[in-house]
Order: sequence, then structure tokens, then C-alpha cells
Amino acid sequence: MGPKARIWGRPRMVVEGQLRIGTSFQLLSTAATTEIAVAAGGRFLIGDRAYINYGCSFYAGDLIRIGDRCLFGTHVICMDNDFHYEEPELRFRHPPSRPIIVEDDVWVGARVTILKGVTIGRQSVIAAGSVVARDIPAGVVAAGVPARVMRRVRGAIPATIAERDPANVPGVSR
Amino acid sequence: MGPKARIWGRPRMVVEGQLRIGTSFQLLSTAATTEIAVAAGGRFLIGDRAYINYGCSFYAGDLIRIGDRCLFGTHVICMDNDFHYEEPELRFRHPPSRPIIVEDDVWVGARVTILKGVTIGRQSVIAAGSVVARDIPAGVVAAGVPARVMRRVRGAIPATIAERDPANVPGVSR
Amino acid sequence: MGPKARIWGRPRMVVEGQLRIGTSFQLLSTAATTEIAVAAGGRFLIGDRAYINYGCSFYAGDLIRIGDRCLFGTHVICMDNDFHYEEPELRFRHPPSRPIIVEDDVWVGARVTILKGVTIGRQSVIAAGSVVARDIPAGVVAAGVPARVMRRVRGAIPATIAERDPANVPGVSR
Repeated sequence: MGPKARIWGRPRMVVEGQLRIGTSFQLLSTAATTEIAVAAGGRFLIGDRAYINYGCSFYAGDLIRIGDRCLFGTHVICMDNDFHYEEPELRFRHPPSRPIIVEDDVWVGARVTILKGVTIGRQSVIAAGSVVARDIPAGVVAAGVPARVMRRVRGAIPATIAERDPANVPGVSR
Repeated sequence: MGPKARIWGRPRMVVEGQLRIGTSFQLLSTAATTEIAVAAGGRFLIGDRAYINYGCSFYAGDLIRIGDRCLFGTHVICMDNDFHYEEPELRFRHPPSRPIIVEDDVWVGARVTILKGVTIGRQSVIAAGSVVARDIPAGVVAAGVPARVMRRVRGAIPATIAERDPANVPGVSR
Repeated sequence: MGPKARIWGRPRMVVEGQLRIGTSFQLLSTAATTEIAVAAGGRFLIGDRAYINYGCSFYAGDLIRIGDRCLFGTHVICMDNDFHYEEPELRFRHPPSRPIIVEDDVWVGARVTILKGVTIGRQSVIAAGSVVARDIPAGVVAAGVPARVMRRVRGAIPATIAERDPANVPGVSR
């Protein structure tokens, strides 16, 4: 963990893999417990100035990568594994994880659920209560169950040519 | 706090502003902690016979006003501030709060999220899991993410001429 | 409770009625408390090999019946009673419960809410964050607020003629 970290309360940490956290990290585990679980062989990589509010649950079986200055509201669930196969006969077997990437300057609202394999592009905002089941491009506000793009983020800063071409956006963000 | 209050468990109270509660208040903080946070200069005003179930989170930076006989299910989030600006360059600055008004006889279902600046009209019912992002008129059932009006509440009691004129309803409720 | 049960953490149990649990039961109450409440006269019947993750809340005023090999993700709410009438003048009276039936091999995702009177058919999958307000037939993936059928479950095993006739499905499952 980088310098200037601040932790309020006692998070539940079950780290058998790699947890790397940048500078000025802030995490709350007050009114509800924030849980960080990293499986053996998994990586949970957090950039600088990240902020995680209380009641969040993270599970990294393979990879969760969170960029710089990302903000997580209360009760966010972010797990790179569903823990079960959809097929009834395979339900008790453990499926592979698929990485979750949250790019720089993303703001994840309260009670958002981020599912496996999802990338959220830089500067985007996920509205409270959303379930993110597919990639969200950069610079947008997404909302709903499942989360859909509503509009551009006010004041979003155009970044690369690729991001101006919507067809490229999901590919860029990995 | 008025007479006949009953509290189950230990709520997390962070009150730097004004908290005023009417008679016969009931609050649970059992299976999950209920948090009430009132910032300096903020007001959280609760009418008579209010009932707040466990796991709720309230934050009043300016004003949350809850009427008489309002019912809150488990895990309701009700915050009059988003804590961040949408604009990426302003994310770490604290935006102004906008009042939340919950009129008399409102029933807020389990796991509802009420966002800043919202008024919920008297007697209305917010279905479980809804996110209330805009005003809800009086006497309706609202549901969904975001919450939309589904139908009239059964047995709703017409109150004022203004409430019979839908065009006036949102204005009335402030 | 049947043999081979495993409990992690300390669930909150308020059992005034009947709680019957099959073999190989697993329940977590770790990062968040799982609550099981069974009212006087109520029954909560759980089949073999059921798995309940942390932060779940069950309330059986009349009946919750969960089949074999059912899986519940974190923070599932499953209550067979709304606790209040919709009619404003009856809000403080306790309405009757209506049974919840979860058939064999159902997988209920994280943060799902299951409302009173609902049957979820065998092998079905309820996606994370859904609110189940009406019956869900067997062998489907349902998602959303409220939950709607999205598609067939991959690898679903046809069971009975009744289940192949959609008109019969809801009736069968009770």
C-alpha cells in the first residue's frame, strides 16, 4: 500500500493473491463492512487516490484493476467471478474469472454491481443502483439494471482518437 | 426526540447539525447498522410515528424532512448530496446538497435509494429496489431504476385541489 | 438441521415457527449478517445442499420453501410479507403472508429481492440486482427491476410435460 493511506473501521481482508494499492488510498468500513478478497493467483490493483466507501465487496479471482482517482460509493459489489456456471449440472463447479477494469477517474455510485469481464472507460459515471453487465465506454453516464449509456459526462475531457470512435472504445479500454 | 421512541440495536449517529424527531419513533439497527449523518448546518427533521428499519443510511447536508407516519424498509439509502461533481476535474470537490422531502404517509420499500433534491408526495409507495431520481407525486406507486409512476395507490385519500391537478403536484410538494 | 451443515460467522436467527434444513447446508454471515426470521406459525423449509451467502435476509410469516441445491448470492432479500398494506389508512396493520417457493436448482444472484407470493421455477437463474415481483417459470434466466424472463438457461434439463407448456408452468410450481 502506498503512502498517505487512510482506513476508517476494520475492512475484512482475505488476500491470498496480490493486492497493490497506490498513494493516498482511502477506505471506509464503518456502518457496513468493506470486504476485499483476492484469491490465490488473483490480482487486485488500485491506482492513486482511490476512494472506497463502506459496505463494498470486491473479489478478484483473476484481476480487478482500478485506475487513479476512482471513487466507489457505499455498497458497491465488484466481483470478477460468478462462482457458479449457468448450466444446472455444473452449478457446483467454479467457473473461470474474467477481469474487471475500471479506468482512471471513474465514479461508481452507491449500490452499483459490477459483473465479471466488464471494463468501465475513463471518467465515466455509473449511477446509483446500476448493474454493470457489459462494457461502458469512456466519458459517459450509465444507469439502470442493466446499466445503459444515458449521455456524455459533463466536462468530460476527450482523450484519444480511439475514444472518439465509438466502435473502438470497448477494445481500447482493456 | 419525542416521547415513546423505541430503538433496537445501536444506530451509528454522526450528528453535527440538527436532528429533530417526533413522537413514537421506531428505528432498527439490528441485522445491519442504520446510519444517520447530519452535517454541520444540516437538518434532519422526522415527523411523528416514523418507522425506520435496519441497514438504512441517511445523510443530511442541508435538509431531509420526513413527514408523519412514514415507513422505511430495510437498506434504504437517502442522501441529499452526491458528494462529488459529475465533471471529472471537480470530482474531489464537495457539491451543494439539495433537500429531500418525504411527505406524510409515504412508504419506502426495502433497498430503495432516494437521491438529492427529490420530493415524494404524501401517501405514495416506493417499491422495493427502486432508485428515486426525480420527484414522485402524491398518492402513487412508483417502481424501477429509475423509479417511475406505475399507478394510483389503492385507497389514496384525495387531499387538495392542487394534488388533483398533476401539473401542480411537484410544485406543491416542496 | 441435517448433517454436514457448515455455518461461517454468526447469523441472526429469530425463529418462533418451524425451520427445517436438509443435508449439507452452507450459510455465511461474515462480511454482513444473514438474518433468518420465522414468525410464530410460519415455516421455512430448505432442501439439501442449499447455499446462502452473507448479508441475506429471510422472513417467513407463512411459508418459504427452498428446494435442493439452491444457491443464494450475497444480500438477497426474501420475505413472504410486505409488513404494510398499500392503503394509507391500513399502513400500520399487518397484512397476510403469501408463500414464496424456490424450486430445485435455482440460482439467485447477489442483491436480488424476492417478494411475497412468488414462485421461481426449477433450474432458473435470477440475475444480480433483480426484484422478483411475479412468478418466474422453470429453466429461464430472469433479470431486471422487476425481473423479466430474458432467455432459456443454458443446459436446462426439460422435466415434465407441464413445464413444456408455458401456460401450465406457474400452476405447476406451487
